[in-house]
Amino acid sequence: TVQHIFKQIFQAGLELQEDDNRKELLVSRKKKPEDTIVDLKGEKIGDGSQRIVAGPCSVESYEQVYEVAKSMKNQGIRLLRGGAFKPRTSPYDFQGLGKEGLEILRRVADELDMVVISEIVSPQDVEMALDYLDVIQVGARNSQNFELLKEVGGVDKPVLMKRGMSSTIDELIKGAEYILAKGNENIILCERGIRTYEKATRNTLDISAVPILKKETHLPVMVDVTHSTGRRDLLEPTARAAFAIGADAVMAEVHPDPAVALSDSAQQMDIAQFESFLDSLRASGLYKY
Amino acid sequence: TVQHIFKQIFQAGLELQEDDNRKELLVSRKKKPEDTIVDLKGEKIGDGSQRIVAGPCSVESYEQVYEVAKSMKNQGIRLLRGGAFKPRTSPYDFQGLGKEGLEILRRVADELDMVVISEIVSPQDVEMALDYLDVIQVGARNSQNFELLKEVGGVDKPVLMKRGMSSTIDELIKGAEYILAKGNENIILCERGIRTYEKATRNTLDISAVPILKKETHLPVMVDVTHSTGRRDLLEPTARAAFAIGADAVMAEVHPDPAVALSDSAQQMDIAQFESFLDSLRASGLYKY
Amino acid sequence: TVQHIFKQIFQAGLELQEDDNRKELLVSRKKKPEDTIVDLKGEKIGDGSQRIVAGPCSVESYEQVYEVAKSMKNQGIRLLRGGAFKPRTSPYDFQGLGKEGLEILRRVADELDMVVISEIVSPQDVEMALDYLDVIQVGARNSQNFELLKEVGGVDKPVLMKRGMSSTIDELIKGAEYILAKGNENIILCERGIRTYEKATRNTLDISAVPILKKETHLPVMVDVTHSTGRRDLLEPTARAAFAIGADAVMAEVHPDPAVALSDSAQQMDIAQFESFLDSLRASGLYKY
Amino acid sequence: TVQHIFKQIFQAGLELQEDDNRKELLVSRKKKPEDTIVDLKGEKIGDGSQRIVAGPCSVESYEQVYEVAKSMKNQGIRLLRGGAFKPRTSPYDFQGLGKEGLEILRRVADELDMVVISEIVSPQDVEMALDYLDVIQVGARNSQNFELLKEVGGVDKPVLMKRGMSSTIDELIKGAEYILAKGNENIILCERGIRTYEKATRNTLDISAVPILKKETHLPVMVDVTHSTGRRDLLEPTARAAFAIGADAVMAEVHPDPAVALSDSAQQMDIAQFESFLDSLRASGLYKY
Repeated sequence: TVQHIFKQIFQAGLELQEDDNRKELLVSRKKKPEDTIVDLKGEKIGDGSQRIVAGPCSVESYEQVYEVAKSMKNQGIRLLRGGAFKPRTSPYDFQGLGKEGLEILRRVADELDMVVISEIVSPQDVEMALDYLDVIQVGARNSQNFELLKEVGGVDKPVLMKRGMSSTIDELIKGAEYILAKGNENIILCERGIRTYEKATRNTLDISAVPILKKETHLPVMVDVTHSTGRRDLLEPTARAAFAIGADAVMAEVHPDPAVALSDSAQQMDIAQFESFLDSLRASGLYKY
Repeated sequence: TVQHIFKQIFQAGLELQEDDNRKELLVSRKKKPEDTIVDLKGEKIGDGSQRIVAGPCSVESYEQVYEVAKSMKNQGIRLLRGGAFKPRTSPYDFQGLGKEGLEILRRVADELDMVVISEIVSPQDVEMALDYLDVIQVGARNSQNFELLKEVGGVDKPVLMKRGMSSTIDELIKGAEYILAKGNENIILCERGIRTYEKATRNTLDISAVPILKKETHLPVMVDVTHSTGRRDLLEPTARAAFAIGADAVMAEVHPDPAVALSDSAQQMDIAQFESFLDSLRASGLYKY
Repeated sequence: TVQHIFKQIFQAGLELQEDDNRKELLVSRKKKPEDTIVDLKGEKIGDGSQRIVAGPCSVESYEQVYEVAKSMKNQGIRLLRGGAFKPRTSPYDFQGLGKEGLEILRRVADELDMVVISEIVSPQDVEMALDYLDVIQVGARNSQNFELLKEVGGVDKPVLMKRGMSSTIDELIKGAEYILAKGNENIILCERGIRTYEKATRNTLDISAVPILKKETHLPVMVDVTHSTGRRDLLEPTARAAFAIGADAVMAEVHPDPAVALSDSAQQMDIAQFESFLDSLRASGLYKY
Repeated sequence: TVQHIFKQIFQAGLELQEDDNRKELLVSRKKKPEDTIVDLKGEKIGDGSQRIVAGPCSVESYEQVYEVAKSMKNQGIRLLRGGAFKPRTSPYDFQGLGKEGLEILRRVADELDMVVISEIVSPQDVEMALDYLDVIQVGARNSQNFELLKEVGGVDKPVLMKRGMSSTIDELIKGAEYILAKGNENIILCERGIRTYEKATRNTLDISAVPILKKETHLPVMVDVTHSTGRRDLLEPTARAAFAIGADAVMAEVHPDPAVALSDSAQQMDIAQFESFLDSLRASGLYKY
């Protein structure tokens, strides 16, 4: 029938358009077949090696950050994360130290020759943060805060882009495109678990997202094992799975004394647990540093 | 039995704790038992009557907005919505007319004595928007953009607060608390469908959220039937369900010519469909205006 | 390109096939435009009126069932449900009285001239159940137990077919097709909530499923407000929404003393609450009996 | 503070209660700390080694099964799967060869000294299947078909128990308890992806379920990489992740000519792809056979 032919033409047009859209994305592997390698003061993400990013959930004090960072440095790990601006569900939860937190991170990093990664939650703070951070993190709750994405796209600083709590893989890719479209090519994508009906874990780690993102884009991919599981006992097994499936880096939270942490105390490792986490990973042969 | 007594004590402890948590929230009905009524230039939301908010998905031109607004006005509907700042998944989709869109909305509203509702996506734009808007909308993608929530909490302008795509009801309530904690009491909550596995509809309308929000908070509750279903054929039935279950208002999208709309063409009603939508609602006895 | 044309042809073929598939379904409105009306001893489901099905979650004793049924009868409600075979998550939970439960239901129904609806969980029990039941219920956990569907398709007894906990609407429709394909046309579909991340309710009532099912199929549609919400305080509001959106019937659980119920005590109404539930529904104008 | 002490008591009560519940389950590691090893004619599942189960989605002919099995045998793989009774969403899809399919599987297995795994969908067929099968599979759609679980619990034949499409981990564990409570200890649990909003994969592989199941129960755990991803290109990466995180076995579908397969053609490997799948797994060091 004529109606059917029209439908066909329409469908064909739709597909053509989708093809075009995908071809046009700057983050796409079709646009750039070779891997993007993000160089963080010598620590390369995306070059085929495995990296670990660690640090406390929230920055609480110079001493707290220094203790964790020192232990990391002893293990040869230079990628330090810590939350200064904390997006919290309730306005009455601890909201982070803000700029003071960034200053602490910078000071510790300078003393120990480390790299600082921290979340920025507002476009207005990006400019200020450039003085303190080596990597700007866009958090899960801001994964579709497009004004923030555009802002970090316009600065000369690597961006760690987390998947939203219920973002599709396609939405994560298009979110990264907002950044790259503004000129910033140094983007690391991060799978951090998605929201499902299953409550045995805080979120459901979508491990398949790693090979899909590696195939669809040329960007390096990290797995945040802390927020995806929310369980200390699952950090090491999921880190193994992440490296085995091809993740370029794993992020995990470490606190000198998790029991008194101002946020997420149940899911952070203490320093002894962190060292044993690294030992097990190395013993598995999946992490070589 | 002893076991049973322990269970009871345990249960009592659980309830006590929950009670305490909830009592502290300013949005809670425990804190303020009577309904909050938001007065929008004479159109009251939350007073037991039913209101309809309508308008195009995106503001495209003065003529487009005027045509829809005129038809609304003829039907006695004064609450005009329209998107000027459009958060879109891809950076290459139409991003809205921005400030020019706000100007168009204001001009039409002034000519026809209507009330303007539009989404603001960045804390920096809130101040500017005060000159144009009667209600500031916080969209689903920004439901946990806490900097934006704090900003709209500090101004003297009603806020329409949408539930996030995968927010729990508790997260929506705590998001509203961010606003009220800054002093702004004029908040309307909006259920707009949640993300589930079911793809027969764009999202899954969580109709039970309406009585839960009315019970837990003192704030008025709206249902966005357009974004929850994404299907023109479901707008009228879901609007009936929304009013029947106690929603104070329903939001629906109307465009003079949906086929050429710059966004969401498949789910908007044209003007004739809108009039028939209203006729059916009135005939059901659930909408009385 | 040639590749593209082939893709088009393939796509067109796919659509043709889908169209054909849909056209061929016996449950489809395309196959039979007029509504199917299921007549349960004079109580018609699907004729435009609103029906209520009530009764205890589990059959526990003759006295328990009689007390509920008597109260229903006084209110003019003849559709009695009660669980005899109970599919329970744990093998150590109460599994129901089995055949003895069916006998109790039948005895009470005969004494009070009522209609009995109860779940059968095994193909082997269908034959036996014919002596006791007026409607065979296929439960959510058995919605894709195709051997059971085929079995109930082969008998001359109406079937109440519940949506699976995470079935799509399409899967529910195809499940009903298994029954109709075997010759049994008396099928009532039942939306009972789907599993999502939201835990404020036991499941998320997918109210939009009602108009979709009414549009796609010619079968009557029921809403189980008890299992979808799991909350006594939401039964009446969701029943209103169900009738407002076009449901042919609502199912709710009633127990003489919910606190001592052997299953699901938190969500059942006692008899006074049930009467007040009915009074409110009648007052809303949405339920006319 | 006093408040803190109450919180602690409360927490302790919560844990006590959970402990009690879990201690009672026969599948629990608290009940039996050492690993259960299921011996399938010499192929041990759960002894610390890695096993692969392969075969076609549906049994179509002797030749088809023989060709796949021969290739498996050449690679040292003896665990042969194949669907004879196929639970299909639509009654008009290919429903499997039934008993004839079991005969084909048995004949090929006897000729090549292999082990046969196939799904049984009805309690009535369990007895008959004992003559043909070495392992009875309970499929995802029947994971809460408790009559079937009880039936396979009463026979002397290992059971492969798949997680339901939207089962929680707790429901899977309690489902296995139905089997063990009837006396059958030879149970293998299988993660096969859960239903979520993400549609880039057929289901979302919940990789964290593996260490949780290993910790909570003493049973071996398998991962079905075919049904969890539904994508041929993801089979090898997810198999690596599964072994890395501690799965005892991986299941994947292989067909001599996937393009003409009667079911699930898009996700099956052909024989060359299967050999390359095994080569890559061996090269990764995560699979040692």
